[in-house]
Amino acid sequence: MENSVNFKEELQKKTERAERIIRRYLPAEEGFSQRMAEAVNYSMTAPGKRLRPIMMEEAYLLFLGRDRMAIEPFMAALEMIHTHSLIHDDLPALDNDDYRRGKKTTHVVYGEAAAILAGDALLNYAYETAFLAFQSNTDPAVIGQALEILGRKTGIHGMLGGQGVDVENDGIPINREMLNYIYRNKTSALIEAALMTGAVLAGAEKYELEAMERIGRNIGLAFQIQDDILDVTGDEKELGKPVHSDEKNHKTTWVTLQGLKDAHKEAEKLTQEAVCELSSLTGDGEFLISLISSLSGRKK
Amino acid sequence: MENSVNFKEELQKKTERAERIIRRYLPAEEGFSQRMAEAVNYSMTAPGKRLRPIMMEEAYLLFLGRDRMAIEPFMAALEMIHTHSLIHDDLPALDNDDYRRGKKTTHVVYGEAAAILAGDALLNYAYETAFLAFQSNTDPAVIGQALEILGRKTGIHGMLGGQGVDVENDGIPINREMLNYIYRNKTSALIEAALMTGAVLAGAEKYELEAMERIGRNIGLAFQIQDDILDVTGDEKELGKPVHSDEKNHKTTWVTLQGLKDAHKEAEKLTQEAVCELSSLTGDGEFLISLISSLSGRKK
Repeated sequence: MENSVNFKEELQKKTERAERIIRRYLPAEEGFSQRMAEAVNYSMTAPGKRLRPIMMEEAYLLFLGRDRMAIEPFMAALEMIHTHSLIHDDLPALDNDDYRRGKKTTHVVYGEAAAILAGDALLNYAYETAFLAFQSNTDPAVIGQALEILGRKTGIHGMLGGQGVDVENDGIPINREMLNYIYRNKTSALIEAALMTGAVLAGAEKYELEAMERIGRNIGLAFQIQDDILDVTGDEKELGKPVHSDEKNHKTTWVTLQGLKDAHKEAEKLTQEAVCELSSLTGDGEFLISLISSLSGRKK
Repeated sequence: MENSVNFKEELQKKTERAERIIRRYLPAEEGFSQRMAEAVNYSMTAPGKRLRPIMMEEAYLLFLGRDRMAIEPFMAALEMIHTHSLIHDDLPALDNDDYRRGKKTTHVVYGEAAAILAGDALLNYAYETAFLAFQSNTDPAVIGQALEILGRKTGIHGMLGGQGVDVENDGIPINREMLNYIYRNKTSALIEAALMTGAVLAGAEKYELEAMERIGRNIGLAFQIQDDILDVTGDEKELGKPVHSDEKNHKTTWVTLQGLKDAHKEAEKLTQEAVCELSSLTGDGEFLISLISSLSGRKK
């Protein structure tokens, strides 16, 4: 997929497909809990890249593709978990951000209490959605394996653990080891989850799952370093969120620790490693490889 | 079990047993996420009645008891979900309570940001813990059914939905229909989950699950009405939390709508209904019946 016009078209199709799948699983806005569902859907329908569900499905397609019914609720669930973390991250007690994905943040629109509960409801709804996979023809034991991965990568030893350490050290200079821990968990964990759950639902072997975990980790680190770079060099309108927030918050990032040039180099190196391992694992990952490659050059 | 000394002894043993099981599943306080694990464990180890896990196991025992390995992680998971809701409920943006279960609340000890993330981590950890049941010999499809119930009763159409509507109508007079919706979800949903997941893991039939759901609903409503009563008549020291908070917050409760006398009567009626249905469902539920009966007379 050297032809970048084709890649862009295909990416757009896949994003729209992910979007349709996600919307199919959102809670109905009715009854007494209508406003809570509205608050949940408000954040879920804000424009997003839907990278994690797309990656999950690509990983799934790489390793077979028996029963679509199991992968789709997992795709929606992963985007819900990601969005849950954004709602709570933006709260006044945490990053205190007013804009996200080009829209006002949930607590600005619905109030702080409702945003805390909407975030909780969305995290829980992610699992409720993933549990719908038990209604498919996929072996329930395999769904159990996918759930274990999703839970672990989301939790205290995954995304939430990374956020916790990040918040604890807010405004305090940190070393590379801790920065690596935060990135590995805050950002890589859900990308690892995307690639691993996709693969496991398609029947991948243990060594393949371990490879997908390493690939996800490298993609995530590259993605986060690119995020740090964009916070310095990016365009506020294009990003849909404020720039220079790291500097404002005295945040240690890869850029503040190693400088812009080194950050660029590292993001490219990590991307290259991920692409190489993916190529040697399967001959089939053309779109996924293009997707990964596109991330280290992204402008938003 | 008319002899209340025996009941108290047995209850204490079962509480200690639930306590041991819960502690076995708590996250280790180590590595970079140590403080987050500490914040999670801080709230989980505060003295609690552990009613929900006890009820879950009792329901489980009623309907068979093949493989203990599946029920135990679910017991711990349910108490984690309950405690998660307490951490977030106590936050400044919600009830703004400084004491809970006789200890300072999580946000007072760890700060607001850490308390939000600890609550998230605990909700997620509940699912991670329940997923451990896949390592038991219980049929994964049955575990899937138990997870579906747990997820639904916790989520936007369960506990969290009830809390959402409760918070939205904070300080606004509400009618009995809405009050019933809030109680049904905020309080009954997790008790329904306890009885239903316990029963389903032990192999109960569909009509038995429906009965357990009705029983759980009635127990929960009685429990919440008793909570309203204790907020007016209870002792702050014994309760471990402030009294008269409903009045202070202009909160509509069963007591403010119907008066104390009617509230007592309703709690007793609901309890009686639950006891009758349980007795007719199985001849075996002696301890569970004593437990239910004891709740409507409780002082804390």
